[in-house]
Amino acid sequence: MIRTIEWTDSGVVMLDQRLLPAEEVYRTCKDYREVAEAIRSMVIRGAPAIGIAAAMGVALGVQHSSAQSLKELDREFHDICECISSTRPTAVNLFWAVDRVKSVYRETRNEGIEAVREALIREAGEMHRQDIAANRQMGCFGRELIPDNARVLTHCNAGALATAGYGTALGVIRAAVEAGKQIQVYADETRPFLQGARLTAWELQKDGIPVTVITDNMAGYFMYKGMIDCVIVGADRIAANGDTANKIGTYSAAVLANENKIPFFVAAPVSTIDFGIPDGAHVTIEERAAEEVRSIHGIPITPENAVVANPAFDITPERFISAIITDRGIARPPFRESLRALATNGAGSP
Amino acid sequence: MIRTIEWTDSGVVMLDQRLLPAEEVYRTCKDYREVAEAIRSMVIRGAPAIGIAAAMGVALGVQHSSAQSLKELDREFHDICECISSTRPTAVNLFWAVDRVKSVYRETRNEGIEAVREALIREAGEMHRQDIAANRQMGCFGRELIPDNARVLTHCNAGALATAGYGTALGVIRAAVEAGKQIQVYADETRPFLQGARLTAWELQKDGIPVTVITDNMAGYFMYKGMIDCVIVGADRIAANGDTANKIGTYSAAVLANENKIPFFVAAPVSTIDFGIPDGAHVTIEERAAEEVRSIHGIPITPENAVVANPAFDITPERFISAIITDRGIARPPFRESLRALATNGAGSP
Repeated sequence: MIRTIEWTDSGVVMLDQRLLPAEEVYRTCKDYREVAEAIRSMVIRGAPAIGIAAAMGVALGVQHSSAQSLKELDREFHDICECISSTRPTAVNLFWAVDRVKSVYRETRNEGIEAVREALIREAGEMHRQDIAANRQMGCFGRELIPDNARVLTHCNAGALATAGYGTALGVIRAAVEAGKQIQVYADETRPFLQGARLTAWELQKDGIPVTVITDNMAGYFMYKGMIDCVIVGADRIAANGDTANKIGTYSAAVLANENKIPFFVAAPVSTIDFGIPDGAHVTIEERAAEEVRSIHGIPITPENAVVANPAFDITPERFISAIITDRGIARPPFRESLRALATNGAGSP
Repeated sequence: MIRTIEWTDSGVVMLDQRLLPAEEVYRTCKDYREVAEAIRSMVIRGAPAIGIAAAMGVALGVQHSSAQSLKELDREFHDICECISSTRPTAVNLFWAVDRVKSVYRETRNEGIEAVREALIREAGEMHRQDIAANRQMGCFGRELIPDNARVLTHCNAGALATAGYGTALGVIRAAVEAGKQIQVYADETRPFLQGARLTAWELQKDGIPVTVITDNMAGYFMYKGMIDCVIVGADRIAANGDTANKIGTYSAAVLANENKIPFFVAAPVSTIDFGIPDGAHVTIEERAAEEVRSIHGIPITPENAVVANPAFDITPERFISAIITDRGIARPPFRESLRALATNGAGSP
């Protein structure tokens, strides 16, 4: 069992994903600013995991509050939520999580600061449990889409490390394996942060699921050679029409899958769907630091001060997506209708 | 002026491309086995440069021959050619160059070993000069295809470092710049060997041509955003029908360009065309060492002993190629006819 993030008496404990697979180091964030910095610097990453970290961060902030009045607490709570919300712009789960703890705050505020503290900590723990349950549900739904003996390409890390546990895309793969299917995973290394080479390879190896790491530019070649049966990725934000923001390179994988007539699946909990935006053009794409591209583990790979670009996400138009696997069932095109139906009518049964 | 490879009295001198851009180190190969090892280990790379290295390597082998008879020389010459030919399987220029020095050998053999030595050294020098001239010709033809103010994506390094000088794809870009056009280059970093991040960025910076390095998985995003006007790449082998073997990831860039209606150009001398194979399915794709994917500059990036794949090239089907720019003119689809016509009828004028 991979312990991505945990609430403990001494703070929020996270497995430092910048150091994997070389080192397995757990960091304890003792106040909300440390949680914000951990999200920003990618100690923890992955849309669902960021959501849980955000909720725990806010709970930690209120736990340590020295507010003497509800008015002071209001101001402090506002600042805490702003600090956490400003860490990363693309994954909607962050804002969804902050909105959720804001509701709890509003509901319990009048019972006093102790009640707020308890309720927020309880809520963060609940979100942690619910995320694992949602991933298991996605696994049950999604495993039907993965044929026995499938060679499955995935991009970035949408696994236990991107969630409270089990994973979205990798959760579907795990569920297929648990159902007795033989699965061979191809993992794009996912420059610049190398989530595939470092994290996906690490967690699949731990589970004994065969995985082959390839550089991002090899995925098309293996599709063209008929060596990939389907592609499955996670998501950072899904617009109402199904357009999907996910790790940079997802769009390329989707275009290549489409060209080679290979099914392309997205796996994400309904909390990743942003019904507030009609399509992908409304997603803010985070631009990260140039150093992530200019060097690898501190070793320069470009000429000094080379001009680089570093968009962390891209948008995959819904027309390239065969199905979106959620914790409430599988949505098929046209997604505007199917996603809305899943969100409104609640869970189907796997 | 970048000195990629030179014949000198003390041996064949090469700029060690494994160390760029951090260090500019020139290595002197004192016998043909060192030349073979330099090709294999990618001290020198790029199809045209490999061809010249091969010719110089054979000349060096014969120069240092201690054969006492023509029969001994025949056997030695055969071994030298075998050794050089076995270094890398994909780029046809290597075999083309060895075939060319074999012809010279046959023509001069009966004049004695001294005459053979002189003729081979002269031929290698001639190939070096002709390669630069061919690149200049390609530049003259190809620059017409690059609009003023174009944002041009390139993959790998098809520049001065991949040739005797000036470059194929980058030669076309240089010629466009020399003709007064404003060009902005986007360079895919090109994992695993990082030819784009290390070599293309280095040589374009030297020439003052604006270049932005992106990871391979970002190229699709920039095309989708309308920020790329054309793509231009080199080639390691072009089949009779136009199918093009080039650095791994070229196929993906071509599919993405096609999806986004962006012209996709290949620039290569006619010596890169292999009329002996009808299409790309007949090209041997080199599989290189796992360590190139598992680590970067000696630092591991995957779990220890992770299974990886490392095909060094892929095939771009001719239907994704808008034009092939050669030293004899520009070939347009259908390439089977246009390539044959260029090769048969000789040079057009730029």
